[in-house]
Amino acid sequence: MSAVALHPNVVLFLALGVTLAAARALGEIARGFRQPAVLGEILAGIVLGPTVLGALLPGGMQVLFPAAGPAAQFLSGFHTVAIALFLLGAGMEVNFSSVVRQGRAAISISVLGLVAPFALGFAAGWLAPPLFGAEPDSSRLVFALFFAAALSISALPVIVKTLMDLNLLRTDLGVLVVAAAMFQDLVGWLVFALVLGLMSTAPGALAVGETVLLTLGFVAAMLTAGRWVVHRTLPWIHAYTAWPGGVLAFSFSLAFLCAAFTEWIGIHAIFGAFIAGVVIGDSTHLREQTRATIDQFVSNIFAPLFFASLGLRVDFLASFHPAVVLAVLGIAIAGKLLGCRLGGWLARMPARDSWAIGFAMNSRGAVEIILATVALQAGLIRERLFVALVVMALVTSMMSGPLMQWVLRRPTARRVADFLGARTFRHRVAARTAEEAIAELAPAAAEAAGLPVPVVRDAVQARELLMSTALGNGVAVPHARLPGLARPVVCVGLSGSGVEFDAADRQPAHLIVLLLTAQDDEGAQLELIADVARIFSRAEMRQAAQRAETFTQFLALLRTGQAV
Amino acid sequence: MSAVALHPNVVLFLALGVTLAAARALGEIARGFRQPAVLGEILAGIVLGPTVLGALLPGGMQVLFPAAGPAAQFLSGFHTVAIALFLLGAGMEVNFSSVVRQGRAAISISVLGLVAPFALGFAAGWLAPPLFGAEPDSSRLVFALFFAAALSISALPVIVKTLMDLNLLRTDLGVLVVAAAMFQDLVGWLVFALVLGLMSTAPGALAVGETVLLTLGFVAAMLTAGRWVVHRTLPWIHAYTAWPGGVLAFSFSLAFLCAAFTEWIGIHAIFGAFIAGVVIGDSTHLREQTRATIDQFVSNIFAPLFFASLGLRVDFLASFHPAVVLAVLGIAIAGKLLGCRLGGWLARMPARDSWAIGFAMNSRGAVEIILATVALQAGLIRERLFVALVVMALVTSMMSGPLMQWVLRRPTARRVADFLGARTFRHRVAARTAEEAIAELAPAAAEAAGLPVPVVRDAVQARELLMSTALGNGVAVPHARLPGLARPVVCVGLSGSGVEFDAADRQPAHLIVLLLTAQDDEGAQLELIADVARIFSRAEMRQAAQRAETFTQFLALLRTGQAV
Repeated sequence: MSAVALHPNVVLFLALGVTLAAARALGEIARGFRQPAVLGEILAGIVLGPTVLGALLPGGMQVLFPAAGPAAQFLSGFHTVAIALFLLGAGMEVNFSSVVRQGRAAISISVLGLVAPFALGFAAGWLAPPLFGAEPDSSRLVFALFFAAALSISALPVIVKTLMDLNLLRTDLGVLVVAAAMFQDLVGWLVFALVLGLMSTAPGALAVGETVLLTLGFVAAMLTAGRWVVHRTLPWIHAYTAWPGGVLAFSFSLAFLCAAFTEWIGIHAIFGAFIAGVVIGDSTHLREQTRATIDQFVSNIFAPLFFASLGLRVDFLASFHPAVVLAVLGIAIAGKLLGCRLGGWLARMPARDSWAIGFAMNSRGAVEIILATVALQAGLIRERLFVALVVMALVTSMMSGPLMQWVLRRPTARRVADFLGARTFRHRVAARTAEEAIAELAPAAAEAAGLPVPVVRDAVQARELLMSTALGNGVAVPHARLPGLARPVVCVGLSGSGVEFDAADRQPAHLIVLLLTAQDDEGAQLELIADVARIFSRAEMRQAAQRAETFTQFLALLRTGQAV
Repeated sequence: MSAVALHPNVVLFLALGVTLAAARALGEIARGFRQPAVLGEILAGIVLGPTVLGALLPGGMQVLFPAAGPAAQFLSGFHTVAIALFLLGAGMEVNFSSVVRQGRAAISISVLGLVAPFALGFAAGWLAPPLFGAEPDSSRLVFALFFAAALSISALPVIVKTLMDLNLLRTDLGVLVVAAAMFQDLVGWLVFALVLGLMSTAPGALAVGETVLLTLGFVAAMLTAGRWVVHRTLPWIHAYTAWPGGVLAFSFSLAFLCAAFTEWIGIHAIFGAFIAGVVIGDSTHLREQTRATIDQFVSNIFAPLFFASLGLRVDFLASFHPAVVLAVLGIAIAGKLLGCRLGGWLARMPARDSWAIGFAMNSRGAVEIILATVALQAGLIRERLFVALVVMALVTSMMSGPLMQWVLRRPTARRVADFLGARTFRHRVAARTAEEAIAELAPAAAEAAGLPVPVVRDAVQARELLMSTALGNGVAVPHARLPGLARPVVCVGLSGSGVEFDAADRQPAHLIVLLLTAQDDEGAQLELIADVARIFSRAEMRQAAQRAETFTQFLALLRTGQAV
């Protein structure tokens, strides 16, 4: 049977299955190295595409990803829908009302953090378009505007995640950063939409003036009347249609229709989907679960398939020009950092905080990559600038967390799951008393800590004698702070018959979590105890813990937070 | 601007947006009349397709749904993926292990409920293929096998929903019905896959013998080794990849790869996706949330778009032949009912129960429609049998609930949300005591009940004097049973300052739910009180109730069960 004779449907499902599996697998590996998943997803495309598989096994790549035919047509349409949905999700993260509510600091940081990279980008794009790989026949103004917009955008999802990791999301600083990034995104996207409008010269397209007017009118109408209507429609949908089907279908329909409209007026579909997301996400009637469901699907199914397709389409090695990459990186980073620093100075913020804000806002993330893809498809830029923008997006996103952590000297929030290993998990402990349980768990904990067993055992025992560490409901957290510990040690023991821990509620402990933290690390112990209390506050989670037969099953329980 | 000049991406998003909105809207209207949503979704396609829009405004339909071109290519591929994902979801509902565990009753009902319609269908298909619209050149054996398989399948989602509505899902009868339906589905699909294998005569396709062997080998391998591997892989995925992204991507990748495989061996992609769903759904490590997330997306986005596309593709009016429809309906219903009745008799079940099981299993639902679509696309049947099978699937699904309810004389479970109206909702009550609150709510309740105000007020007051109706945590449920009430009356009052209801926990009531039920309806009162207690057991729901400013917002809270 000849490989070329494969039915298009075989190709379609094979391409989807292989790409999704590879993209998510490499995305998880990237996450394991504390890098953004999108890095791994693009790498998967590079491996499956012309750069690697195409070079090693051209026939295999031809079969899996034919350049033409029904499967190729479908996948191309699928990627268009995927990025529109990705922007719907990104728009839903934007809280338009909270941007409006923020005060002077947010405004000066937003404006300067936008104006500085925009001005730098515009100047660079205007003065030296060929250096950055503009198409020779493209308009200088349009290219400079695009380049300026591309450098101004922020990666809201990356920023939110970084702030969450550092326990900063709900602080004044966190709210400020998020509001400023949202403002910049809105303006950046508006400029980008206008750039696309200025470019649309296809036969039958609207005149440039019409496109610009329609774009501004669309945004204005959606952010005023559209918001009003959606906010009043959502409770009605929740009350009178199936939950959550009604609101999911409403969100998708609105995104599709707005995408069709912006595509029709000559700017890209993603812009309409983004504005639809902003309008829906702004309503306080939107339920968190709806946002989460859409995000789960978009981030884990649609986005990996799209980002992998980039590696399939472009030969990243051949289009990698170090000079262009360095120039783009330099301008992008300098513009954002200087702008935010200046804005922070105007708002009389401490220098440390405004640097931290700059590092946070500097991340460009996946949205930048989508913007670059659209510009590439529209013929506005060439592959070398595309590759440079992708690299810039990845590098700035990867820098963001570590640099913020460094400048603020904030440790990331510690979770029990991060410090538990197979060697510190005891499926069944035989102990009947707290003293026996501590003695039983101490050797594993001591080994993980690199300390002598008696040191660990005596320290935990001494603490236990001071006052019971039972949290109630059958959970106990014997613990001690020890000098010279490099990282926290978490040791778990399960007991079917129960261990007497002298709990206030008289219940024997069935789940014993022994914690060792460093003497000089004040936050770690409290964070880990709070994490145990939070995870096992629900009875079903405590029951599920007893059913765990292996370390992996127990870890799965912690990671998912779902008992069934 | 000429309509034909629309960019393919405009068409794509417009078609998706309009179809999804129309399908879900008509689906919700169908649900409002207590009919399956799929009925409304197909109707939406009929309205947008050749039957209505095509007849009224041929140009408009051409623009929205062009017969060829990139948008048409994309949508065709999209529908193929959509039905594969629908079958992934359907497969995940099948609990293979529970089928194996069921005893003698399940076996005799499964087997006879399968054999009877299968035999009837085979006989009819063998004796009179042209009557049912077989293609003249198709094999008689293949057609008869297809027809038999098509009559044997059950609609698991419809059955589960009906059992839930009747509070039967967790009863012996419910478990039995679900297990028997799962068994029939597995066998029915296997036969259908073999039919597709027997038919595949495309150039480059495998020989029939190879296809059949590979199909049986695939099913056997997946249900043994595949189940073992997936069951052991899921905890690992939960423990070491992002939640819930890892498990979602794993499920989709596996479904896509199995779909590619079954497509390659000459049976349809949906079969591979279904088996992948069975294998994943069987693992006790699968979290309920994963199943729910996949189901929400598939049922609310992919399925409506697919079912609407049926109405777009087929002219239902022109292909509606009453004789064929009646013959198919008669054979389908007779086969299922007789088979289940006979099986129940063999298992010595009460006649009433085995009739109820027959009515439940008789529903064919959406899966039957997908099976018919595949047979139509494969050239096995013609449009008039397609339409007859669709009508049969809808009619049997619509009959199922009412007939079960009638034969078992079981009322559907009553929910507060079903009996609350804008006229019985008080945004703010002024009362400070229980007596005042009852007096304040009584007029609205009396109006809804069609009874004099004093009758209602005095009955509720009398009950309140007997013993406080406070549930604690600021919730009170004053209630009374009254003679001559046609349906329950629910009346809600919110109080910011609190009403003294003499609660055991001393908390004043902020949420007062006044309930009137019929004297002779014993279950209603208990069910409604339990519903109030369940919904408002979470503090966030009680707080959200106080924030509700309109009746619609309050109803949205009840329907979604989500406070934020």
